[in-house]
Amino acid sequence: MQNSWRIPQPSAPEPKLKVDFVTKKPGIVTWYNCGPTVYDASHMGHARNYMAQDIMRRILRDYFGYEVNFVMNITDVDDKIIVRARQSHLLKKYLAELATSSTPLSSRVLQEVSTAWTAYFTKAFAASLPSPVAADDFAAAEAGWAQVQDLAKDANWVEAQKTANEKFPMYFAAVEAGYTALKLAQKQEAAGATGLTDAEALIEANKDAVGLWLDKQLGASVTDPAVFRDLAAFWEDSYFKSMAALHVERPTTLTRVSEYIPEIVTFVEGIVKRGFAYEGGGSVWFDTVKFEGAKGEGEGDDEWRHTYAKLQPWSKGNRELLEDGEGSLTSTTGKRSAADFALWKSSKPGEPAWPSPWGPGRPGWHIECSVMASAVLGEGMDVHSGGVDLAFPHHDNEIAQSEAFHNCRQWVNYFLHTGHLHIEGLKMSKSLKNFITIDDALEKHTARQLRFAFLSQNWNARLDFKESSMQEVKSAETVLNNFFTNVKALATEAKERSVASDGQHHYEQAEKDLLAQLEQAQLAFRTALCDSFDTPTALQILLDIVSKTNIYLARGRRQVNFAVILAVSEWVTRMLRMFGLGEGSPVDGNGDKVIGWGVAAAKGDEQSVDRESILMPYLRALSGFRDQVRQLAMSGAASSDILALTDKLRDHDLVDLGVALDDQEDGRAMVKLVPPEILREARDAKAAAVREKAAKKAAAAAAAEAKRLERLEKGRVPPTEMFRSNTAEYSAWDEQGLPTKDKDGNELPKSRGKKLKKEWDMQKKLHDEFLKEQEKQSA
Amino acid sequence: MQNSWRIPQPSAPEPKLKVDFVTKKPGIVTWYNCGPTVYDASHMGHARNYMAQDIMRRILRDYFGYEVNFVMNITDVDDKIIVRARQSHLLKKYLAELATSSTPLSSRVLQEVSTAWTAYFTKAFAASLPSPVAADDFAAAEAGWAQVQDLAKDANWVEAQKTANEKFPMYFAAVEAGYTALKLAQKQEAAGATGLTDAEALIEANKDAVGLWLDKQLGASVTDPAVFRDLAAFWEDSYFKSMAALHVERPTTLTRVSEYIPEIVTFVEGIVKRGFAYEGGGSVWFDTVKFEGAKGEGEGDDEWRHTYAKLQPWSKGNRELLEDGEGSLTSTTGKRSAADFALWKSSKPGEPAWPSPWGPGRPGWHIECSVMASAVLGEGMDVHSGGVDLAFPHHDNEIAQSEAFHNCRQWVNYFLHTGHLHIEGLKMSKSLKNFITIDDALEKHTARQLRFAFLSQNWNARLDFKESSMQEVKSAETVLNNFFTNVKALATEAKERSVASDGQHHYEQAEKDLLAQLEQAQLAFRTALCDSFDTPTALQILLDIVSKTNIYLARGRRQVNFAVILAVSEWVTRMLRMFGLGEGSPVDGNGDKVIGWGVAAAKGDEQSVDRESILMPYLRALSGFRDQVRQLAMSGAASSDILALTDKLRDHDLVDLGVALDDQEDGRAMVKLVPPEILREARDAKAAAVREKAAKKAAAAAAAEAKRLERLEKGRVPPTEMFRSNTAEYSAWDEQGLPTKDKDGNELPKSRGKKLKKEWDMQKKLHDEFLKEQEKQSA
Repeated sequence: MQNSWRIPQPSAPEPKLKVDFVTKKPGIVTWYNCGPTVYDASHMGHARNYMAQDIMRRILRDYFGYEVNFVMNITDVDDKIIVRARQSHLLKKYLAELATSSTPLSSRVLQEVSTAWTAYFTKAFAASLPSPVAADDFAAAEAGWAQVQDLAKDANWVEAQKTANEKFPMYFAAVEAGYTALKLAQKQEAAGATGLTDAEALIEANKDAVGLWLDKQLGASVTDPAVFRDLAAFWEDSYFKSMAALHVERPTTLTRVSEYIPEIVTFVEGIVKRGFAYEGGGSVWFDTVKFEGAKGEGEGDDEWRHTYAKLQPWSKGNRELLEDGEGSLTSTTGKRSAADFALWKSSKPGEPAWPSPWGPGRPGWHIECSVMASAVLGEGMDVHSGGVDLAFPHHDNEIAQSEAFHNCRQWVNYFLHTGHLHIEGLKMSKSLKNFITIDDALEKHTARQLRFAFLSQNWNARLDFKESSMQEVKSAETVLNNFFTNVKALATEAKERSVASDGQHHYEQAEKDLLAQLEQAQLAFRTALCDSFDTPTALQILLDIVSKTNIYLARGRRQVNFAVILAVSEWVTRMLRMFGLGEGSPVDGNGDKVIGWGVAAAKGDEQSVDRESILMPYLRALSGFRDQVRQLAMSGAASSDILALTDKLRDHDLVDLGVALDDQEDGRAMVKLVPPEILREARDAKAAAVREKAAKKAAAAAAAEAKRLERLEKGRVPPTEMFRSNTAEYSAWDEQGLPTKDKDGNELPKSRGKKLKKEWDMQKKLHDEFLKEQEKQSA
Repeated sequence: MQNSWRIPQPSAPEPKLKVDFVTKKPGIVTWYNCGPTVYDASHMGHARNYMAQDIMRRILRDYFGYEVNFVMNITDVDDKIIVRARQSHLLKKYLAELATSSTPLSSRVLQEVSTAWTAYFTKAFAASLPSPVAADDFAAAEAGWAQVQDLAKDANWVEAQKTANEKFPMYFAAVEAGYTALKLAQKQEAAGATGLTDAEALIEANKDAVGLWLDKQLGASVTDPAVFRDLAAFWEDSYFKSMAALHVERPTTLTRVSEYIPEIVTFVEGIVKRGFAYEGGGSVWFDTVKFEGAKGEGEGDDEWRHTYAKLQPWSKGNRELLEDGEGSLTSTTGKRSAADFALWKSSKPGEPAWPSPWGPGRPGWHIECSVMASAVLGEGMDVHSGGVDLAFPHHDNEIAQSEAFHNCRQWVNYFLHTGHLHIEGLKMSKSLKNFITIDDALEKHTARQLRFAFLSQNWNARLDFKESSMQEVKSAETVLNNFFTNVKALATEAKERSVASDGQHHYEQAEKDLLAQLEQAQLAFRTALCDSFDTPTALQILLDIVSKTNIYLARGRRQVNFAVILAVSEWVTRMLRMFGLGEGSPVDGNGDKVIGWGVAAAKGDEQSVDRESILMPYLRALSGFRDQVRQLAMSGAASSDILALTDKLRDHDLVDLGVALDDQEDGRAMVKLVPPEILREARDAKAAAVREKAAKKAAAAAAAEAKRLERLEKGRVPPTEMFRSNTAEYSAWDEQGLPTKDKDGNELPKSRGKKLKKEWDMQKKLHDEFLKEQEKQSA
């Protein structure tokens, strides 16, 4: 432009993320996300958390254009995993031993299960019992259980128990089932039954109790690391399958705790060296007291101090949260302050252990994330995410550890804590019987419906998953599906009209208005996503512009300008796919954009519209061939007709479709996809060769026939006549017509006579053939 | 975050577009692009221009995240179209008349072609002839042509002619071919030949000359608007087919001049009203003299003045450019200043015309873009694009008209002028015989290769299309293909290993380095695209990171961390697809990302790996069915066997494939794709119904048989014996065994005898049946 050019002025200020989002490297987001502890099936709480992160990751990448390095860990070393793995291992072993016993249901087994049940009962109902029961006194426990059952007839009492301990109903059910099975087994055994099935039923009904009891007796004997690793690997695989089913993308970088032990040891050593951790009882503890307010170093000339619990300072003294963070197997031996937490835990027998300067042990829970995030992303990161329940102590401890180790002021620039999940207004839990695994949810809803439901609520708010919301989602889905179906139908018609023009542009006020509304929607959409990823508003904007377009569409197919509708449809499609709501390919086989968000496949159903358009020509060929075979068979046609049909299919119909069938000796043709022009060439060359061969054969036959006719013609004169007309050479003939004298009346020499007789014999043969042919012709 | 949170500091400044890119509405780009004048096949010059715009449009949308409203016109009213349409219409008519003549090759035709040739010759060689030749003097022209041929033996003379007029070789060839054909036809006619073939050959060889001559004679008689519209529609369709083949996306909004005539008239009236245009000779002219320096109004309190030729002020007086912009059919009658240009052109007979306040006429070339851009985008726009040769006078005139009409200071904020195309260093032209249509180019190269070549040069520089560059493109393509093939192979292996862990993270210095290089590449890529869409640098960055990753890959499949390689591969894939270099779907049937940029289909070859995997099961079913039909036919099997086979195909093989065949009365089955489980259910229900019916039938048959046996059993006793044993009732019987007396010896009453006879007859019938059955059984 020339110097007359002016810097343009925007008509409205550019929407910005409400908190300025400044990344360490321009255009690149480094992101660490707390992944799952893998010891059980993934449930809707996981779906809520990981789907929300997946949505934000997609928005940053596919809408705002950032490159996102998304790091996630798998916690495969953890007290829950250890306990679960040991119990399930010991229970399996116990059952295997029973199976080899000659009397699986024995008084010994009854004794053992009674002991396990008593321990479980006393632990579960310690607070509910009128008088205490010793953990090894089965008779007292039975009496106690009778009391509990009596008390449970009072609904108010039950309510009070539930309030005190939400797991009360679960314990009640487990104790009841176990006790009933025990009583039955006692009767069976008394009646002389010793069978495996009865014994297995008893163990199954008491498996939690027996598992706990076995672990208490034998847990320390479990030393094979594979016991722990195998359980973790199984549930990690299950987790990723669930995530794939939900269209949650895999992390860029995946880290596992079990693979980072040496780095963790080094990191802990570093914190000890900087004075913020100490050894005690074979474990290493983070010194929260020393850390709080300690003077920081570096980072310019500013004076600054370390702060503990930056995220939730009000939770600092919360004992329950602190204990929960430490794990069920952790002892507090050697810990100086209640708020201190384990960086490294001394391992007891039956717990996985790695060598360290402080003896065999394993990492604490919080340290793993500090170490793995640092290993992959360096001294700090842009974004760290996790469920809101991880904010304290997990993330606050991570921050303290990392800022202590790196001696830095702000290890994470942005923390994203996803909100809780409730089911129909209640916390999801097994004891409330509203526990939904991801597999359960996917039996009832598609991945798209679940994602739509999650997008309909803010990522950082409590999400209430309820049937009525799912109904709303389904009707929104129907609105979008109907819209895209209509646009597709119009697209087909528009394609047919192609360059036809009636001399009018059909771009009047209604069209201008709709395009202006599209622009407004695009601007509002951007504003919404800049406002802390406000996806509920963004989705509503998409539905609104669709509804406005539907009003325009109601003018009728001949009164609308398709280009304007397509502009809306393309934008809505692109935004839905950006959110991860798309199914199938965004482009068709020709590279043209597919209209709409694709068809959400029902479970196990892999079909799509695209597939149909690819398959149909071939299926029509198949069906047409079958039709003709049927008709021929019904009319009792000859086999040769059916064979001709199979040739036609191969040489014509399938050639045009680019399918080569090579008939093989074993009767099973080979099938190949080959460009039609190559097949046509080959077919035509083959036909030409066949024609040429036939022509050569025909020419040879014609030549042979000509030769035969010539020979027959030669035989027309009888041998008796053949020499008679030759008076120029002969003057006398015998009765067979053989010359006897030459033209001068001299006798022919004997040698001459012999030669003529040979000629005569030859002609006799030819003449006989001639007569035979004549006879044949006249017959 | 708590109040301890600090605003993050980026480590490097955010790259920005070198000229700040400020759109009128945040996040939205309004863009008007000068589309093609449709009168011939699209060539590589078009490809260069529209592909460059497509690339920039994709970058703004898919990389920088703008919503782009891309408006493009089709110029379907234009002097070139008028002339081309008239000539081709008149030539067609002339040939049609010849075809109905009894003597197509006549002295009249020879005379006419000679006249046409003479006119063409004199016009083409006026400057090259030693002495002038009258346009109607055939003999003089022949002599002149002989002279030209003589002179042309001197290479220097030919060079001088070419320098003076680059079309010299084309004219020479046309005159030569025409003259040779004319001489031949004269001889043929003299020898008495009058045939159509000879006449047609004569016209074909002289078609340019005859077309021009016919147009001069009869052009004014062509009045049917369809003649002009049909030619434009044909080439518009051809243009969009070429663009689709190049993967150039269609505009959001397409406008055609012929559909905007009323708006153009109103716009011209507006300029006249504002005093910047005047009527003259039935045309309306833009008053450049009055416009230049005229005081502008509005737009705040600033004083500002209109400026003519803002883009190329140095071209203001360029007569050649000005004339070229006005069109070959435009008269200058009524024009006041040489720099003034037509807004509305008075139409002569034989030119399409629309009513206007200034009499029948048609729009000037420049006005259409001003009007259509304003109609769709309003009073101004963010971006206007076109080839650099359109800068003056076309775009400068557009600006003047629009700023005059809208009374605005800056109608367009950013002009993008794409650079010229050269072929092997030379301007592309038909006379240089280096003219390449898009179809020609696509015979030799894939659309991807052409796009890659265009991306390898800056959009606003002269692009040299040469064989050596295409070789470089092909080797770069091979590098990328090989990289993706390797990554795919590794992906398969990685999938197999899945959650297996050897306890090591394999994320060492080499991996950290490669990921750091990826981040550097991403940052450099962003910087390049911010620098006026510097795609050559951006492509090189992609190739560089692939090359670095290849070095890492050379460590061997067991020594690499696949996640890191996948991170590179995913980014490179996404960027290549963003440039429009992708083929096929970016996701597979499961919604998983496809590794790599897909397979570029050779022309006419629509196959892809995906398609094959979809089709093969169905084709195997088809082929297997055909195999069995063949075998049955060859073994001379019964028709019923073949019918059973067709049923099996429908009820089993195709059901499992999700294909429903509904046999119809007309013998042509309907084909549908239906999920297999639904088909199986329907099939099984049908089979169950058939079984039930059969079972009912069988039960009925069994019942009937039982009844029959019962009846037969009843008939075992002969009628002669049936009463004899009944001595309790009877005491005497006749010879047929009918009782005659009761137990007391009294005669039986007649009525009784009658009744017994009836029973006897009944038994006789049953017994006969019994005997018959016995006979049958023993036979």
